[in-house]
Amino acid sequence: MTDFHRHPSTYHHWQLQIDGDVAQLRMNVDPNHPFRPGYELKLNSYDLGVDMELADAIQRLRFEHPAVKVVVIGSAQERAFCAGANIWMLAESTHPFKVNFCKYTNETRLSLEDASRHSGLRSLCAIHAACAGGGYELALACDEIHLVDDSNSAVSLPEVPLLGVLPGTGGLTRLVDKRKVRRDRADVFCTMAEGMRGRKAAAWGLVDAIWKKSQFAEKVQARARELAAALPPKAAKGIELAPVRAAVDGTTYRYAHVQLAVDPAARRATLTVRGPQGSQPRNGAEYEAAGSSAWALQCYRELDDALLQLRFDHEQVGLLVLQTRGDRQALLQVEKDLLAHRSHWLCSEILLQMARTLRRFDLMSRSMYALVDEESCCAGAFLELALACDRIYALDDDAVAFAVGPLSQGALPMSHGQTRLLNRFLARPEHASKLAAEMPALAAAEADEQGLCTYLLDPVDWADDVRIALEERASLSPDALTGMEASLRFCGAENCDSKIFGRLSAWQNWIFTRPNATGDEGALTRYGAPESAKFDWRRT
Amino acid sequence: MTDFHRHPSTYHHWQLQIDGDVAQLRMNVDPNHPFRPGYELKLNSYDLGVDMELADAIQRLRFEHPAVKVVVIGSAQERAFCAGANIWMLAESTHPFKVNFCKYTNETRLSLEDASRHSGLRSLCAIHAACAGGGYELALACDEIHLVDDSNSAVSLPEVPLLGVLPGTGGLTRLVDKRKVRRDRADVFCTMAEGMRGRKAAAWGLVDAIWKKSQFAEKVQARARELAAALPPKAAKGIELAPVRAAVDGTTYRYAHVQLAVDPAARRATLTVRGPQGSQPRNGAEYEAAGSSAWALQCYRELDDALLQLRFDHEQVGLLVLQTRGDRQALLQVEKDLLAHRSHWLCSEILLQMARTLRRFDLMSRSMYALVDEESCCAGAFLELALACDRIYALDDDAVAFAVGPLSQGALPMSHGQTRLLNRFLARPEHASKLAAEMPALAAAEADEQGLCTYLLDPVDWADDVRIALEERASLSPDALTGMEASLRFCGAENCDSKIFGRLSAWQNWIFTRPNATGDEGALTRYGAPESAKFDWRRT
Repeated sequence: MTDFHRHPSTYHHWQLQIDGDVAQLRMNVDPNHPFRPGYELKLNSYDLGVDMELADAIQRLRFEHPAVKVVVIGSAQERAFCAGANIWMLAESTHPFKVNFCKYTNETRLSLEDASRHSGLRSLCAIHAACAGGGYELALACDEIHLVDDSNSAVSLPEVPLLGVLPGTGGLTRLVDKRKVRRDRADVFCTMAEGMRGRKAAAWGLVDAIWKKSQFAEKVQARARELAAALPPKAAKGIELAPVRAAVDGTTYRYAHVQLAVDPAARRATLTVRGPQGSQPRNGAEYEAAGSSAWALQCYRELDDALLQLRFDHEQVGLLVLQTRGDRQALLQVEKDLLAHRSHWLCSEILLQMARTLRRFDLMSRSMYALVDEESCCAGAFLELALACDRIYALDDDAVAFAVGPLSQGALPMSHGQTRLLNRFLARPEHASKLAAEMPALAAAEADEQGLCTYLLDPVDWADDVRIALEERASLSPDALTGMEASLRFCGAENCDSKIFGRLSAWQNWIFTRPNATGDEGALTRYGAPESAKFDWRRT
Repeated sequence: MTDFHRHPSTYHHWQLQIDGDVAQLRMNVDPNHPFRPGYELKLNSYDLGVDMELADAIQRLRFEHPAVKVVVIGSAQERAFCAGANIWMLAESTHPFKVNFCKYTNETRLSLEDASRHSGLRSLCAIHAACAGGGYELALACDEIHLVDDSNSAVSLPEVPLLGVLPGTGGLTRLVDKRKVRRDRADVFCTMAEGMRGRKAAAWGLVDAIWKKSQFAEKVQARARELAAALPPKAAKGIELAPVRAAVDGTTYRYAHVQLAVDPAARRATLTVRGPQGSQPRNGAEYEAAGSSAWALQCYRELDDALLQLRFDHEQVGLLVLQTRGDRQALLQVEKDLLAHRSHWLCSEILLQMARTLRRFDLMSRSMYALVDEESCCAGAFLELALACDRIYALDDDAVAFAVGPLSQGALPMSHGQTRLLNRFLARPEHASKLAAEMPALAAAEADEQGLCTYLLDPVDWADDVRIALEERASLSPDALTGMEASLRFCGAENCDSKIFGRLSAWQNWIFTRPNATGDEGALTRYGAPESAKFDWRRT
């Protein structure tokens, strides 16, 4: 079982230091502490374990240190800022691991951008020495990039010329879509193994500022304080994030509010989420008092962890079955209270966490079916989970109810910026708005009429029909399903975030499987070897 | 050499019949006339040769039969509307051929949508019997889909369940983005090998109308006449499209205004386009008199053909070098006249043809470098070609000039709907607007200052620097370059068209290379065999 829990007190690879409203986050990768044995993490190169700590640091800045307005991301190693994802790790990894690794690191970088956009936490990347590949992609996710102006400090994306693969963590898209670097310059930059330094890097928009080495630390800190001073005051005191860990029993993961039961033989996992039980905080102060044990926070942190377990430790599971449980009114009350107190930092952070978890759910490359029966709590954000599924099977029974909640109007956007209701009713946006505004509680038959069910099944047929549906899905080509689902789940709009997952990752996924990259004579395989790569030159 | 020229008088697979303002285009594929020997085209299944005739028919409707307002696309075979792309052909084809085949068929379908959007040529798909895979994707490209309501007539996308690949011609994207079919229903439909019939197909939005078999022909024709009656009058008489064919000398293709010189050893092709010579038509009537020999039409038709030759017959060429020749003022005058007379049907059609050819150029999966020297004519739409390239190398000499032309303001949009200037200057949209509005003629140094050059090279260095640049590019991994270029060329916006090429095709490209599809035990390989496919179940 992969343990995704991390804590600054036991970080191997990062140093987090808080100075009032500015935090310093320094990369200092321990070469002898790889996530899996078999390679050394030289020159601040990273693997999944390094990125778990980074993801944890960003989470803790948001929840434990809300006073922080600016995080300065730098390196504690003299010789390198960051050499990017570790090449030996990549070359040794299976294809599914590579893809899931890239997806995870993408989500980490998006969480950094999300914190800037919604939590008043700006990020400033301070680069000395070499900053290559995934290192520069981390920089691209920051609000500002500052670079030492010397002969030694450069930013680069050397994946194409050196490894025959793409920068896999949003680099190409962020270069032209976020930083709006001119596309021909982006082309030059992405084919230059040595990257770009100083004035030219600044002139081309690859970095925002350059400083002499002697002034660098001082200038960066001054800019960080300036950025912090421009932001409104923030909460002084955070809450502590308690560890989230499942009790594992065979292939069943039990959390307080979430359960993931994996059936390896059927290549299926059943995910059960439970609504709040007992009294819940009603406002910001009560949430602060409750800390991370409040249902609204703990449930979605558990769900996040369960999704990661499934991604990394159960590659053969093709189908995720969603079940919801709990009291509808209690769940909707929690959501109403959070929304009413959204101006409170913690209520806002909890809502943002829910939104991120739902986006991670949207991006599971597994088929997802929601089952809605008389025990279900298909309401609010749990209904959003169902809407994120590829299909919704509902039992035609008066005891079965659907309830649109207050968060469906826009508090939980998908990667491409749309609500799940609009994404579902693209042909009838007024219908999506009506459901979101009126927040109706609907019996199953009515929900079906309103377009919320894929199948409404008679109780007599329920067990058989569901069984057959699950078996049928699990028999189809896993690759074709991944491509189909990625194409059907995100309708209409696209933005930088969704282009990273939809366009860039699709290309990356292809290139990783090609002999030109990962074959015996491929560029990734041969990196560092005396012989250079041999290519099949046919262009596709 | 592949001959892309087709003419209705020698069609093997389609019947085109014009009745006033309504045309009937009936698919009647000759099973014994495949594009390459080795498979039979049963049940109106198609291959590249069939699609060349379809593309030709759409072109001729636009240019030769401008009076036509509605084209009814049907089948002349009783047993099938269309079985989609021929599976045996796909299973036997190389990966690059499959990808180029899908790209070509995508462009054909986009040209049908383009004709509806811009040429007042509506399309109505009339389906009886089975309409599967690429057959239904052709229907999706039409404005309306009419289906016989009987037990025999169904629409389907059986690629995922039967073949383990994706519908490769825009099907998934058009289903949810164009027809806005609810995503869960799209999921169900795309995993049902048998497809959907009659009332349910209509209720789910898969078709627009259903009719009893006995009434079908009459209802379809009545609807076609109704659609035609709602459109404004159109030109009565068209022009004849003369064949476009290169004189081939070894690996050099010579047309009247275009030359493509392939250097197989260097894996490089030099494309030279020449501006107008001698007097050119000034208005619609003069263009009608000149017919297809007018430079503005012939040059871009030749360019179109050259690009297809390169795609299909020179897979190993990784780098396309663009050279422009001719008189700048004469070229700009032609463009000004075409734009001034855009309300004339033929001037409009010529501009639309130019736009389509430029989009085909944007989508070449080859690296593209433009060379601009003292002989160049880097103006108007030829400058657009340069802007479509990955890089522009310009000679720093006073005799070298760039000139933005009148078509750069929006007459030649890229697939994602943006102008190439805005796509280049995403960070400075006001700069893109300024250049497009003022249409400056700029000396090379000034053009460089305005951001139009990637490299401005001293005459002393020109030959060596260009040589090294070309050699360097040709040494990089062809797969990584394809993915990189696809990610950097289209900045900012996305729409249905660009999602088809960027998101859907990328996934398709990946899936086609996977053992689950094309391995010895893959679903595509095993289609029709007694053993079913064996899958590697790991999800990525």
